[in-house]
Amino acid sequence: MKRNTKNSFESYKQRNLQKLQEALECHTVDTEVISLLERINSDERFVTTSSCSGRIVLLSLPRLGDKKEAFFIGCWHHTPTIDDLKAALKKYSMGQLWLLAQPPIFHIAARDLDSARLLLTIGFEAGFKLSGIKTLQKHYLVELLSTERLDMPLGKDGIIYTDEVLLRFLLETAETVIIRSKEKLQRLDQKLRYYLKNEERD
Amino acid sequence: MKRNTKNSFESYKQRNLQKLQEALECHTVDTEVISLLERINSDERFVTTSSCSGRIVLLSLPRLGDKKEAFFIGCWHHTPTIDDLKAALKKYSMGQLWLLAQPPIFHIAARDLDSARLLLTIGFEAGFKLSGIKTLQKHYLVELLSTERLDMPLGKDGIIYTDEVLLRFLLETAETVIIRSKEKLQRLDQKLRYYLKNEERD
Repeated sequence: MKRNTKNSFESYKQRNLQKLQEALECHTVDTEVISLLERINSDERFVTTSSCSGRIVLLSLPRLGDKKEAFFIGCWHHTPTIDDLKAALKKYSMGQLWLLAQPPIFHIAARDLDSARLLLTIGFEAGFKLSGIKTLQKHYLVELLSTERLDMPLGKDGIIYTDEVLLRFLLETAETVIIRSKEKLQRLDQKLRYYLKNEERD
Repeated sequence: MKRNTKNSFESYKQRNLQKLQEALECHTVDTEVISLLERINSDERFVTTSSCSGRIVLLSLPRLGDKKEAFFIGCWHHTPTIDDLKAALKKYSMGQLWLLAQPPIFHIAARDLDSARLLLTIGFEAGFKLSGIKTLQKHYLVELLSTERLDMPLGKDGIIYTDEVLLRFLLETAETVIIRSKEKLQRLDQKLRYYLKNEERD
């Protein structure tokens, strides 16, 4: 039974590595997390299934929480300039308008419960305080998620309630989220180096 | 060994129920979640350790993420009026100023892994999509957390960048977070009734 579980994880890992390889070839993976993904995937106990290094998003949606109908007006992995933002805002016409700054997120499947526990420890120590185990089915899916964020409604029904002074202030604040996100990625890298080295299997 | 774990959970549960009783006597528990807490605690496999029904918070903090130094200028479990908000804003003088609308959150210890898995299922089905298992030590601590939120910077260094029109719009949006939070609590109650009844032990 144990052997089957191990084989099952190995084939699951191979499928996910194949998908990652395809995404790398299409340049759809954030360059800032590639070395982190490689570090995690080099350990036989883990495989990454999705990730984002942190981003700033401008989106419209019909109503709160209606993610399926959300339309991405703008998406940046760095801080956009005020001109970038104003140009994107011209595309807004209906629904709710939100500016989001989102922290880094990683989804990682772990082979067994002890490995999932280790990932949680690494995540919390790196400051990914919203981390948790999301599923306990065939594999153990761990989400590493940091806390810094900005979720701000800017307008509704085509009307924008923010002026340029406020937009500049929001961009400045969003930039601090992005800066903190980059610091968190470095801390995560340090913790992975430390724990995976000390836990290395022969 | 199994017997010890069971005894250990039972005494841990008794200590937490005692703390909850004290909090109830001091009226420091949100009245809107009391029946939910009772439903969860009536099952021998679970004990609640903390909770919030969702709230609107006005706080100042020296810098992003510096929660330890955060100062609560205002906190409401309903939507404040514009006059409530303006009165609270007068207390702001330094640091970053944020308006938050936070969804419901529950921390629940589960006796064993299967019980933790069941809680996760209940949470996800009730729409608490940020739920996860936070610790896998002696007990299994599950966090049930919903997604709707507003995290909006309003000012810094004593300067407020928002006018009354925008504040009214923000309160209106914050109110939709609170309304969705109340709906989520009802869905959680329904799911708890369904699953705990069907899984009831003799």
